[in-house]
Amino acid sequence: MTYCVAMRLSDGLVFASDSRTNAGVDHIATFRKLHVFQQEGERVLVIQSAGNLATTQSIISLLSARIQAGHSPNLMQVDTLYDAATLLGDTIREVIHRDSQSQQNGSTTNFGCNLLLGGQIGSESPRLFHIYPEGNFIEATSDTPYFQIGESKYGKPIIDRVLTMNTSLEQAMCCALISIDSTLRSNLSVGLPLDVMIYRTGSFDSSEQHRITENDPYFAAIRKAWSEGLVNIFRQLPPFPAQRQA
Amino acid sequence: MTYCVAMRLSDGLVFASDSRTNAGVDHIATFRKLHVFQQEGERVLVIQSAGNLATTQSIISLLSARIQAGHSPNLMQVDTLYDAATLLGDTIREVIHRDSQSQQNGSTTNFGCNLLLGGQIGSESPRLFHIYPEGNFIEATSDTPYFQIGESKYGKPIIDRVLTMNTSLEQAMCCALISIDSTLRSNLSVGLPLDVMIYRTGSFDSSEQHRITENDPYFAAIRKAWSEGLVNIFRQLPPFPAQRQA
Repeated sequence: MTYCVAMRLSDGLVFASDSRTNAGVDHIATFRKLHVFQQEGERVLVIQSAGNLATTQSIISLLSARIQAGHSPNLMQVDTLYDAATLLGDTIREVIHRDSQSQQNGSTTNFGCNLLLGGQIGSESPRLFHIYPEGNFIEATSDTPYFQIGESKYGKPIIDRVLTMNTSLEQAMCCALISIDSTLRSNLSVGLPLDVMIYRTGSFDSSEQHRITENDPYFAAIRKAWSEGLVNIFRQLPPFPAQRQA
Repeated sequence: MTYCVAMRLSDGLVFASDSRTNAGVDHIATFRKLHVFQQEGERVLVIQSAGNLATTQSIISLLSARIQAGHSPNLMQVDTLYDAATLLGDTIREVIHRDSQSQQNGSTTNFGCNLLLGGQIGSESPRLFHIYPEGNFIEATSDTPYFQIGESKYGKPIIDRVLTMNTSLEQAMCCALISIDSTLRSNLSVGLPLDVMIYRTGSFDSSEQHRITENDPYFAAIRKAWSEGLVNIFRQLPPFPAQRQA
């Protein structure tokens, strides 16, 4: 499995992904799930992926190869993030159609994947999309400023409690890391290292990318502070009253 | 969906269940998912259920009817919790077999359910089992002193962080309620009121049952304290350092 989260906030975009893939607990490997396409001063596109690794790798390979080959349309030519989302949806359908065509009768292989696409093109504001295995997609709004894909449930409550459109990018990244930490603790199929990125509105700069390992001092510090803080709050809660009124 | 959690601790057992059932968001109803079978001074058996409501209601009805009719084996006759778990597994298989027999070709109705069974019989220590739709089951141990069924992922991180075998029953109930609160906030298909019960080792007493509604002062107080406490810890965490060493 995988866990990726992306946030679209007033100041820009925040992305965080784990890097574990598995096909059963004895096939665990590390693969990057955060991919950046950039044209300086003009566009930054970030793609996160969850699902069938053969499918998601093929999608990224095809998207890249078509940019190299000047194939039209490609991610460097599209005029809007919406068009980029459409292109990703088409590419998902193409790969899944190709790979599932020769599927043997009765096989239940799931070729599906989910993608998150965030970024900024030209004069548009930054936008964030969730593209489904069917190739259709939804866009983040002020009401729902974040998307998750993969093993998303363990880390959802903390985001729901603290994130708003006006959260700063640095606080939002802290929230994303805490969300991933909750997932890491409860689910073996999500694992370090993490790939994270902050994108600031209008910067067209993708240099704020970091790989966070087990030994990252910031991640270690907030994991510890969060864990101890939670246990402290819990200890301060009144225990369930054994004698209660009906 | 549903969310039920049960814990087997040094001092006894803790049970908490929501009461929402749904078949699509426009068929939402309230049904009790915590069922108690008791013989004073000799046995207390608590069953929680998640899954197909027709299946779980049938199982409870058959278990009850067979006690009334003196049918053998029944829950009042079995000698151990293990035998009770076996009986529940058999009853799950019986109901699913009956209901799915006449299923139309191509229908994808899921008749499955998961049950939690906790309690104490005679001189045995309290035990806790999770019975799967296939009728087989696992037992809680000191390493894993709790089970969840239904929409379990949202509320798992908090339990993993604070619960041990030596947690008091009153603190454990507080933990269960916080776990349910996290689930309520993130998933519409889990809803109030809650049915909860504390069982103290050796008491053979099932009277500590409570229904917790929206207006329950204790639940309201811990939800508020927990939520505010979380936001406070989060605010105290250092934001992600924008300039970091590679």
